[in-house]
Amino acid sequence: MIKNLFLYNSLIGEKVKFEPIASNNVGIYVCGPTVYSEVHLGNCRTFISFDVIVRYLKFSGYNVRYVRNITDAGHLENDADFGEDKISKKAKIEQLEPMEIVQKYTLDFHNVMSLFNTLPPSIEPTATGHIVEQIDMVQAIIKKGFAYEVNGSVYFDVKKYISQGYKYGKLSGRDVDDLIPGSRDLEGQQEKRNSIDFALWKKASDLHIMKWTSPWGIGFPGWHLECSAMGAKYLGDQFDIHGGGMDLKFPHHECEIAQGFCANDVDPVRYWMHANMLTLNGKRMSKSTGNTLLPKEIFSGNNDILNKEYSSYGSSIFYASGTLS
Amino acid sequence: MIKNLFLYNSLIGEKVKFEPIASNNVGIYVCGPTVYSEVHLGNCRTFISFDVIVRYLKFSGYNVRYVRNITDAGHLENDADFGEDKISKKAKIEQLEPMEIVQKYTLDFHNVMSLFNTLPPSIEPTATGHIVEQIDMVQAIIKKGFAYEVNGSVYFDVKKYISQGYKYGKLSGRDVDDLIPGSRDLEGQQEKRNSIDFALWKKASDLHIMKWTSPWGIGFPGWHLECSAMGAKYLGDQFDIHGGGMDLKFPHHECEIAQGFCANDVDPVRYWMHANMLTLNGKRMSKSTGNTLLPKEIFSGNNDILNKEYSSYGSSIFYASGTLS
Repeated sequence: MIKNLFLYNSLIGEKVKFEPIASNNVGIYVCGPTVYSEVHLGNCRTFISFDVIVRYLKFSGYNVRYVRNITDAGHLENDADFGEDKISKKAKIEQLEPMEIVQKYTLDFHNVMSLFNTLPPSIEPTATGHIVEQIDMVQAIIKKGFAYEVNGSVYFDVKKYISQGYKYGKLSGRDVDDLIPGSRDLEGQQEKRNSIDFALWKKASDLHIMKWTSPWGIGFPGWHLECSAMGAKYLGDQFDIHGGGMDLKFPHHECEIAQGFCANDVDPVRYWMHANMLTLNGKRMSKSTGNTLLPKEIFSGNNDILNKEYSSYGSSIFYASGTLS
Repeated sequence: MIKNLFLYNSLIGEKVKFEPIASNNVGIYVCGPTVYSEVHLGNCRTFISFDVIVRYLKFSGYNVRYVRNITDAGHLENDADFGEDKISKKAKIEQLEPMEIVQKYTLDFHNVMSLFNTLPPSIEPTATGHIVEQIDMVQAIIKKGFAYEVNGSVYFDVKKYISQGYKYGKLSGRDVDDLIPGSRDLEGQQEKRNSIDFALWKKASDLHIMKWTSPWGIGFPGWHLECSAMGAKYLGDQFDIHGGGMDLKFPHHECEIAQGFCANDVDPVRYWMHANMLTLNGKRMSKSTGNTLLPKEIFSGNNDILNKEYSSYGSSIFYASGTLS
């Protein structure tokens, strides 16, 4: 058992000794993909990074429960509280039902992860698979006085949270005063008490495809909520490590900290770890930048960026027990 | 487009011309595995049979939406309304959280299906992923007067259904009078108005691990309900083809017919198709009989039953794009 393990904890910005809550057992949650398009190499970087971390924890002698979710609902365009669901939008474009999109890109994701020979997580929960748990969590936050309902939507009350002495921005280092935008003309923004409040539950319009019955009417969960609900369910109200891409620090992980604390009276995560963004020619690899490379393009050499193909030779497949040619 | 397609419809016991509800589009639902153990060859027979049917429908020119579920909660021992959840029980034995059992055997199932080169379904919904939809369906059935709540559980009222002129037993050919057992000493049976009533929702004891908030308190859905809720959600209140193993005709599919009709005022399925059981030395291959063969035992030849190994040569992998060695 390797006991002297040091991790860089993003929450405090320091490398610290890792001490799990329950002696030899480690609970780790990693934010998984939103399954609405093929994962590119930049997405893969995060998952490969945490694969190495999980393997090292196991190698060190820990029992690891590794949870990596699939976001299959609630993630709106531009990571905002308003706009169209990313999966529903792609479903319209491809003329498929949203869950067909989910299936298509979940299979693609598994396939790509197997090309990189990463381990499957111990549990791979989905947002749509935890609607009841998310509703329960919203109820708990409302009960504690940190959320309010307006017109069938429920928002987290950031100012109330701050007024109780809690620091919204402690992970990302953002200053709340800088976060309040001058403009309030986004759809539905006028419902919020403050523009920095974020959605826990959103009322669904008639056009919205993915929606569920709730105590507040027909709607869907806010994007940030799923990870809080699933992390708490499978790893406990407080667990050891939460990982994800650097771009998720704000608002996603910041919101998770606030939600989790208010629902369960404990900081949800002890060690936050973030993988940096993959850059290509100095720019972050992203769909919006337009400089993405798909793993299959690297392995085939069929791309405009690299001048040769790279082999995944030696990797074995975990979703299917064969070897790659 | 091949138009003259004839199917054996189990509901009427005849081979009839297939005419889909929506011209060129076919909706097909197949009962998938309960993911609590490795799938054996007998299980695979059903899935391979419907793979052939789906491929033939596609080859015939139809757009096919193929839904095959994963049962990851609510399936109790002996297929009964009482007893322990199969997945929770295995979780205790393997000292894992139930959703780790689900992940382990879902991956195994996908792996085995890829060895047989079957197509993945268009949508692969899970029981735990549709708790809200199942609760909505129970509410609808209660509202129509065909279900009643007792002590936090909800049962379907079979006698009421029959009294309205509907035939419980029309798929399986069972006679209701033969179905009423003399004994009523099973745990919780005394809650039912009649012993043939079946659970739509069950109250969870403190020891029960997999449970959710509902209008009737903390509990879990009855096993039969998931397929009705997911079939209706993804294929419509009435859809073309419902398939499964012959052993599911009663009670599972019989209950689906009753539930679906009462919730949505329409027979849920137009063509029922059942794959017969695989037999080995004259006996049904099943875990209870103890004569199961795992696919990997056939491919390796490492078993006591067959005297040589059989190759899956030529199959390609859909979950991972390689070739098998």
